[in-house]
Amino acid sequence: MSVATTTVNNTHTHHSTITPFRSNSTASFEPAPKIGIHDISPQAVEAKYAVRGKIPIIADGLSELIKKNPEDHGLPFNKIVNANIGNPQQLDQKPLTWYRQVMSILQYPPLLDSAVEFPQDVKDRARLILEHIGSLGAYSHSQGAPFFRQSIANFITQRDGGIRAANANNIFLTSGASTAVSYLLQLLSKDEHSGFLIPIPQYPLYTATIALNDAKPIGYYLDESQHWATNPQEIRHLIKENKEKGVSIKALVVINPGNPTGAVLSRDDMVKLVDICAEYGVVLIADEVYQENVFDGKEFISFKRILGELLNEKPELYKNVQLASLHSTSKGISGECGQRGGYMELVGFSDAVKDTIFKLASINLCSVVSGQAMVELMINPPKEGDESYKLYKEETTAIFDDLKSRAEYLYQAFQEMEDISVDKPQGAMYLFPRLNFEPASYHKLFSRAKNSDLLIDDIYCIELLEYTGICCVPGNGFGQKPGTFHLRTTFLPPGKEWIERWTQFHEKFVTKYKDSTLFI
Amino acid sequence: MSVATTTVNNTHTHHSTITPFRSNSTASFEPAPKIGIHDISPQAVEAKYAVRGKIPIIADGLSELIKKNPEDHGLPFNKIVNANIGNPQQLDQKPLTWYRQVMSILQYPPLLDSAVEFPQDVKDRARLILEHIGSLGAYSHSQGAPFFRQSIANFITQRDGGIRAANANNIFLTSGASTAVSYLLQLLSKDEHSGFLIPIPQYPLYTATIALNDAKPIGYYLDESQHWATNPQEIRHLIKENKEKGVSIKALVVINPGNPTGAVLSRDDMVKLVDICAEYGVVLIADEVYQENVFDGKEFISFKRILGELLNEKPELYKNVQLASLHSTSKGISGECGQRGGYMELVGFSDAVKDTIFKLASINLCSVVSGQAMVELMINPPKEGDESYKLYKEETTAIFDDLKSRAEYLYQAFQEMEDISVDKPQGAMYLFPRLNFEPASYHKLFSRAKNSDLLIDDIYCIELLEYTGICCVPGNGFGQKPGTFHLRTTFLPPGKEWIERWTQFHEKFVTKYKDSTLFI
Repeated sequence: MSVATTTVNNTHTHHSTITPFRSNSTASFEPAPKIGIHDISPQAVEAKYAVRGKIPIIADGLSELIKKNPEDHGLPFNKIVNANIGNPQQLDQKPLTWYRQVMSILQYPPLLDSAVEFPQDVKDRARLILEHIGSLGAYSHSQGAPFFRQSIANFITQRDGGIRAANANNIFLTSGASTAVSYLLQLLSKDEHSGFLIPIPQYPLYTATIALNDAKPIGYYLDESQHWATNPQEIRHLIKENKEKGVSIKALVVINPGNPTGAVLSRDDMVKLVDICAEYGVVLIADEVYQENVFDGKEFISFKRILGELLNEKPELYKNVQLASLHSTSKGISGECGQRGGYMELVGFSDAVKDTIFKLASINLCSVVSGQAMVELMINPPKEGDESYKLYKEETTAIFDDLKSRAEYLYQAFQEMEDISVDKPQGAMYLFPRLNFEPASYHKLFSRAKNSDLLIDDIYCIELLEYTGICCVPGNGFGQKPGTFHLRTTFLPPGKEWIERWTQFHEKFVTKYKDSTLFI
Repeated sequence: MSVATTTVNNTHTHHSTITPFRSNSTASFEPAPKIGIHDISPQAVEAKYAVRGKIPIIADGLSELIKKNPEDHGLPFNKIVNANIGNPQQLDQKPLTWYRQVMSILQYPPLLDSAVEFPQDVKDRARLILEHIGSLGAYSHSQGAPFFRQSIANFITQRDGGIRAANANNIFLTSGASTAVSYLLQLLSKDEHSGFLIPIPQYPLYTATIALNDAKPIGYYLDESQHWATNPQEIRHLIKENKEKGVSIKALVVINPGNPTGAVLSRDDMVKLVDICAEYGVVLIADEVYQENVFDGKEFISFKRILGELLNEKPELYKNVQLASLHSTSKGISGECGQRGGYMELVGFSDAVKDTIFKLASINLCSVVSGQAMVELMINPPKEGDESYKLYKEETTAIFDDLKSRAEYLYQAFQEMEDISVDKPQGAMYLFPRLNFEPASYHKLFSRAKNSDLLIDDIYCIELLEYTGICCVPGNGFGQKPGTFHLRTTFLPPGKEWIERWTQFHEKFVTKYKDSTLFI
């Protein structure tokens, strides 16, 4: 049956009639089957990404159910608490006024001459950006607009105390930090013998991207007994062991401050890690997206700074070190995840290799230009004396203090839960508590796990979601030592009520699964 | 030498002093060399992307030279004319007021209650979007915000005359169309025997992405003598030939309207292409980003519509056809390249395969949310009666007419040039003229090419750039029949002066290289 209709033109152009369709097709053939899972990239099929994996997908389903039946959904909660992903503005965090005022002018420059009273520094910055980039709607240079890159280079130089001047030609603007990871791992994956050292637990973007590139993840365990410290000795050992097996180690990934652990690296360990990279010719990928999220007592030092100091001291030893440092507007105090701003700085790469990264960036044309502008606003905020400064300071201080107190409150709550241990947060946006459920005293739980495809931490997170609406991610999505079980939760959701519900759930969970002492 | 400094904190947090660095490093080791081109992905090294390749890079260098020495650069022009890339807002195209007013409110919602007088429909749309998505700064669902996906589904259904209702669950918001291409080719590249049928000439994103995935490009020639028509017979022939060689053909890429050719497919050929996909189980990747850029006499019909009609007529024959259709905010009348908005619709894919694409999208978290909003504004513009309608209509009509007249003027100019032939533009943003320089009458040119690494079209484009500042892309970057030479130029640059300079250059080029008739 052919259906006669009129084209609805999607543009301003005139409407026109398409001749009713008459198939002159005398087509007859045996239709081929659809492609299936065995016809596509096995790497894509195998890759896992728990942060948006099984449990968040169930949570989305429950959320839909609540939306469709707000009165009669039959669930013991009315709302999903998304603690599975560091997404501050999905929860209650308000965007910073400074960012958004400038961005509104960049989107609609006539606002500069309108009745809206923007602070002078907002208007000045918007004008300056527009002068340099023209329109947000034009593709920029593949690495990002030169103006933004120079500004980022200045920021890095200043942040690192002027140890080494950063060069705008080494900066690549990216869509969040994810694109940077994707370029680097794609570039460095020569073949299936290419190995990448990644922390365990890790942010699963790394294992997923390594899997997509058919390369080899080599996990080095962070030491839970030492507040998730990094053990350079273990990394050396793994390099030697894997080299003997014929693995060519391409890069050492370090996440500092740590995701999901929240640990902040010590200066001594950082020096040792740079030494390893210098000695073995391994690229250092420093994921430093949480550099603003560091709590009292701890302090963020960039790898660029450490490398700069070492280069000043012993250039011959460190001149070949290749460092890629990543940053993003998604985290920190800005929390502008959806705007996809980010950058990477490349230090010490050969021109030929850098040109290849440039080509990868070119194939994607450029990162979103509004996201590039976001990076500029993050690294070059209002200064004392600027009209926006006071409000900016108030807003950022409030957010920082709020995050810190949320982290502490959640930490306290976990500390009081039976059979849970947890580290005091030093940085980032997460807690990674350990579920100390021993087989000897949790027979019911382990036999339930045995009879299903689920691990202990899966069961905990699923039941937590089903009973409270709190969505977090099982530790196995990040990697953990065999026989240990964790979960990652952000401390971003507002209020204390959800934490109280968690505490109540936990009591019930323990009551349900822990062997009664009567039988011991 | 260690340098004592103070950390410059990049956030609102208090300044702190870092202990001056004393290396306790008794480190002594043989530093490893840097990684070189042979240590990295050979696919990344091999991939080529001419649109931002050699000639545009030389142009960037010349542009820098002019900027640094505006008075004394020694070049015969004062400005680079970027005709190498479809980037309207880099040139003189103004953003549409409708888009940018709504975007400014999305970035800074307090504008809704400010003194700015925005049209009512602008405010209403911004409010509606904010109600559904919350903040632009939050990650959306990995496929894109459900609200935008439903709106896109409605647009598709209406555009295609209601033939088949589109489903929001099959829509993926992407960063321009490039990300969609990247997901699809990555997904479908099972191994090195996976083949992709691509038009020759083609947009080099396809060959580059196929190379990155270590898959096999199988070029089908567009027929220059038939206004660059697609020849279904040749495609059938290539499928058979390659199947015999053990190649597993995964997808047929069709760019309609064509890039770089500007050709618009006929309905009959579209039906034949769908037949091929149905018979051989080949995914149809329809790059339809120029669907709004169609000039009079021609008309865009979507593959979704053709497939829908065939499905209504003979469901048994077409039920397994898998179509991915791509669209973008970068082209059309909007030309919002830097905002990175785009979507793909998947039709007929199995759930397992679609879930894998979803996972790829999840690993990238989400496409930029402001770009998602741009798509909404493109596919759901002001309607008659809305306050913005008149201005929107005026602006879009002016842009459309302007593009059309630029295309025609450039077309006329090429028609008058010696030894150039060119097709009348039917769509897209490019002309792809042929340089009819025959070896028999251009001895000097061919011997220059022979003595260098350059092809005839390279030489032409380099000299054009050096003498006029006009940057376009040699045909070999897109693919062309052996022994033929072309170039791709956009018709976006404003004014006629650059075209006149081109005409003058061309005369000189012919005079320089063409054998004098005296010697014949």
